[in-house]
Amino acid sequence: MPLRELQYPTEPYSKVNRHKDRADYALETIHQIVNSCPMLHVSFQPPNSHFPAVLPMIGQMGSFARPSADLGDVLDLYLHGYVSSRMMNMARNNNNNNHPSSPDASQQQQQEEEKGLPVTICASHLDGLVLALTPNSHSYNYRSAVLFGHATLVTDPAEKLYAMELITNSVAPQRWQNTRVPPNAAEMQSTSVLRVRIASGSAKIRSGGPHDDRGDMEDEALLDRVWTGVVPVYSVMGDPVAGEYNRVKEVPGYLESWRREANKDAEELAREAAGRA
Amino acid sequence: MPLRELQYPTEPYSKVNRHKDRADYALETIHQIVNSCPMLHVSFQPPNSHFPAVLPMIGQMGSFARPSADLGDVLDLYLHGYVSSRMMNMARNNNNNNHPSSPDASQQQQQEEEKGLPVTICASHLDGLVLALTPNSHSYNYRSAVLFGHATLVTDPAEKLYAMELITNSVAPQRWQNTRVPPNAAEMQSTSVLRVRIASGSAKIRSGGPHDDRGDMEDEALLDRVWTGVVPVYSVMGDPVAGEYNRVKEVPGYLESWRREANKDAEELAREAAGRA
Repeated sequence: MPLRELQYPTEPYSKVNRHKDRADYALETIHQIVNSCPMLHVSFQPPNSHFPAVLPMIGQMGSFARPSADLGDVLDLYLHGYVSSRMMNMARNNNNNNHPSSPDASQQQQQEEEKGLPVTICASHLDGLVLALTPNSHSYNYRSAVLFGHATLVTDPAEKLYAMELITNSVAPQRWQNTRVPPNAAEMQSTSVLRVRIASGSAKIRSGGPHDDRGDMEDEALLDRVWTGVVPVYSVMGDPVAGEYNRVKEVPGYLESWRREANKDAEELAREAAGRA
Repeated sequence: MPLRELQYPTEPYSKVNRHKDRADYALETIHQIVNSCPMLHVSFQPPNSHFPAVLPMIGQMGSFARPSADLGDVLDLYLHGYVSSRMMNMARNNNNNNHPSSPDASQQQQQEEEKGLPVTICASHLDGLVLALTPNSHSYNYRSAVLFGHATLVTDPAEKLYAMELITNSVAPQRWQNTRVPPNAAEMQSTSVLRVRIASGSAKIRSGGPHDDRGDMEDEALLDRVWTGVVPVYSVMGDPVAGEYNRVKEVPGYLESWRREANKDAEELAREAAGRA
């Protein structure tokens, strides 16, 4: 950890404008939310479409230059998934069709092009249903993070390998070293990894119980009638189901101990969020 | 249900190009994925930014004109959440800064503006971790849906009320009628609901066990060493945590029976997906 907590700059596009009290710009908070999210939502503006593209992808924050970096350090986001060739092509050969026009567009565009494809990445965890006296005061407990950055294709085989191991071990810790590695030439060739250099980001976190307006809080009959509180929500990994060609009778310890631990942690986190003041 | 299964048109921006065997364009499939997703990711291109905006939001498909419509019918998406005023303003008064330029842009833009703000909505469920012999063959079981459409602010109070009830009851069934309703004038005023008219959409679904390449499947030592199969993943609602000002001793039956049922269904769905051929 750096001695002083690093924060992302608050750019006009990244600033949280509503519920500012829930906002957090600390790198560690944001990277933690991203790295614990099994599915990221990645958005970019394709040329010749009015609609942004949104793709669910797997990704992890990391530093190829300094693999031992902490979560609170400056990190890149590595993305992997069944990415449309569309996105890969844009990250490889970013052209000037994908930027909205503005007065000083051409100069800005040129600068942007050199950085890669502008992408926005969102990571969200639902932690609980917050049930209040009135529909309007209903809410969720959640942790969400948004990152803004420029994506380019990773071409250095060593960096690609670093990212592949990072991402595989985010699906299940130690899985990389417990499978057939390293990938062969065909696998290295067919795998595409994107590196996103982060320009800015923010997190938004809500925890705790319901809050209602004073008028409703003074309505005795209402208070006697409506149950208020939080239903914690968390993700569980169930008993592993062996595949058709599996020959290993027992689920390995590195998988089972991680699964049990992660399930316990997830439940605790959601329960704690529900009870927090 | 309509007699014949309705499908969304496959537009260039909505067509699934990779793993076409996992694609599904049926309205019922897509709407089912969206309506069972507690957090949607909504993306749009703001003016004066290179980065698309991505917001986690709550939403439900429905038909105000025909509330009894089935999931397989033509439906609108109603969105609610702590939307930045930015998005609301754009949906209210959509200007021509948010479209990428193209040769016939001005005419297209004008047509688009009349429809509302172009938005892309993604709904994703993670159903399992698919662990194969090699990192490259690792995968997820998942159900994801993407919808493309035009968002406008709902101004008709009756339609807004319809959407608010729809969305509240998607958080917890029957919650609307078990709280203080209807919303008062101030609540109606302060609540913003977006209606998205859907232009197109697609779903992508993966289920079943791992698949490895032939070379690895013939490697006896590898088969003897690496556990392969699926770890089912599903969302669980834990024991409700009463809030500070709750006075209702027992969690009401409509909440508890729904919670238990939903937990059972979620586990079954993930387990079934893991075992499917």
